[in-house]
Amino acid sequence: MIHGVIMAGGSGTRFWPKSRKKLPKQLLALTSPQSMIQETFARLAKRIPPERITVVASADHAGRIRQHLPTLAPGNVVVEPAGRNTAACIGLATVRIARQDPDGIMVIVPADSYIDPAEQFLDVIEAACAAAAIGDTMVVIGIPPTFPATGYGYIQRGALLSDERGIKVFDVRAFKEKPDGETAQRFLSSGQFYWNSGSFIWKVTTILQAFREFMPDLHAALQRIAAGAGTPAEERLVADEYARLKSVSIDYGVMEFARSVKVVEATYRWDDVGCWKSVEEHVERDPNGNVVDAKVEMIDTAGCTIVGEPGHLIATVGIKDLIVVHTPDATLVCHKSRAQDVKKIVDRLAEKGMEEYL
Amino acid sequence: MIHGVIMAGGSGTRFWPKSRKKLPKQLLALTSPQSMIQETFARLAKRIPPERITVVASADHAGRIRQHLPTLAPGNVVVEPAGRNTAACIGLATVRIARQDPDGIMVIVPADSYIDPAEQFLDVIEAACAAAAIGDTMVVIGIPPTFPATGYGYIQRGALLSDERGIKVFDVRAFKEKPDGETAQRFLSSGQFYWNSGSFIWKVTTILQAFREFMPDLHAALQRIAAGAGTPAEERLVADEYARLKSVSIDYGVMEFARSVKVVEATYRWDDVGCWKSVEEHVERDPNGNVVDAKVEMIDTAGCTIVGEPGHLIATVGIKDLIVVHTPDATLVCHKSRAQDVKKIVDRLAEKGMEEYL
Repeated sequence: MIHGVIMAGGSGTRFWPKSRKKLPKQLLALTSPQSMIQETFARLAKRIPPERITVVASADHAGRIRQHLPTLAPGNVVVEPAGRNTAACIGLATVRIARQDPDGIMVIVPADSYIDPAEQFLDVIEAACAAAAIGDTMVVIGIPPTFPATGYGYIQRGALLSDERGIKVFDVRAFKEKPDGETAQRFLSSGQFYWNSGSFIWKVTTILQAFREFMPDLHAALQRIAAGAGTPAEERLVADEYARLKSVSIDYGVMEFARSVKVVEATYRWDDVGCWKSVEEHVERDPNGNVVDAKVEMIDTAGCTIVGEPGHLIATVGIKDLIVVHTPDATLVCHKSRAQDVKKIVDRLAEKGMEEYL
Repeated sequence: MIHGVIMAGGSGTRFWPKSRKKLPKQLLALTSPQSMIQETFARLAKRIPPERITVVASADHAGRIRQHLPTLAPGNVVVEPAGRNTAACIGLATVRIARQDPDGIMVIVPADSYIDPAEQFLDVIEAACAAAAIGDTMVVIGIPPTFPATGYGYIQRGALLSDERGIKVFDVRAFKEKPDGETAQRFLSSGQFYWNSGSFIWKVTTILQAFREFMPDLHAALQRIAAGAGTPAEERLVADEYARLKSVSIDYGVMEFARSVKVVEATYRWDDVGCWKSVEEHVERDPNGNVVDAKVEMIDTAGCTIVGEPGHLIATVGIKDLIVVHTPDATLVCHKSRAQDVKKIVDRLAEKGMEEYL
């Protein structure tokens, strides 16, 4: 059977002051009236029944995530006692699914990507599951790049393996780390590279075998966790093992060593919605190019993204290409070209110990 | 004896969202930690004892004004039941002072001007009082213009009458309404014109005589008010008379007709602090030219005026020449070149009946 795994461990400092330690990006409604994790869950749930969807969350966020996903049984939100990157996150989900369905197939997706339309995504997932069902194949989803991004890892494709109903599957030749600008341009021009969207499809048996081979420490920890699963000691056990785990991404820990990897080309619009600027790509703008999610009064205002709170009025006069975000305790005013640097504000607040704003 | 009159009827919509119907400009601390009316009062009180200072306020503001001026007896704040411009305002103060000291001299100033240094102002006032003590002279204070302003009335000077300790007194040739740009430029170039700062010095007997002659309706109303002063009917009487009064400025109603008018040239720095932009002229700026009265975290921010509330953080990234004002229920983001248009926001809110923000 097919199982969904939603990785919801992210923090999203680039959406400050809306995003906070306790309210990360996946819990924000950025591109629709639903939060990003609600969108992600609803998309998967069109094909996978909720009882077979696992959300992996940090202890800080699990409560809110359960509130956002009322149709999901609380036990389906697996809590990580600490962030240990994607390899451990996927490992913990694998332990849970292996107990129920050791022959299952896992569809692993981040909680906070923008994807449209959902039906295309589901068709791609179906093709990926079909590919993953054969042998010990690991499948990734590749996003056709639209600009020479330096913020994503890349996947170099090999031979075309199949092309059914417009969905192409290729061998993977190599995984590439985030490139510099020149390299990214080369990747883009070659037409042979995809962005790594962080979505993975494989059998439970395949990933467990890969952990055993490439990340034996993690594999051993997962075996100990599996042995105690369902007992009163489980939570303590997970905490102890996590305390000793190294923080390694699935890309560095497994994918770069894996032998049989295939990539399915995404046919849907995808964005990781990395900062306030990217929100405007996915929502309606007014005739002056403004994105407004606030009570506003605007005079000569163009190209701005204005986000507020109910009841708080944001008035603008003669401004252009600004991001204005108001929350009860903090307000951001940032030029759109500097949206990436919102993270620097958060870093500074952390340095200064201004915890109340983090 | 010399009596002070502070005209505190203004609204100051250009300082929205800090200024509100119930919290006009004179009650804001814009150029110092003190509110503008506190500054004005303290300046006058250096020369005039508080018992001889009268503040004329609207019913909406009288309570707060009394709070701002704890050394002033509550009865020294005279309440206007409705705004009827400066002639009525001055008339009401005159009635009060005439009862105590019919031979007194009145020094009438707006509540919300920036003036520095205070000692120079007091020297100018002293010269003005000396001039007003002779005959039925009406004295105004003229501000040497520094640019061709179209927002002020002008005073054309005549012959130099005296020049003692660097303070010059001239005959007034004419009062001029707010000019167009070309005319303002001509006024400036001629060297013969002053800005009308709205400050007046004269005897009680002189202004009463002028009202009788040039504004007989107002004079009659003031006589009826004076007849009922100190009785239980006073408040009702003032309300009835005000309901019938026309709204006329002292400039239009009296000054343009007055025969013996002199102007004392101001030797101090003066500004009516007409909008958020003008605040920066009178306060300290950081090395990047920012004026900050808020809890801030700034990255690459220059030439901005940032005003907030205690505890609310305003973070800025990559912005220039903006005015950012945060209050609990409304936030303004305005380009500095458009500071005058903040009034338009207030007008729109009024049109839409959004009273809660006014």
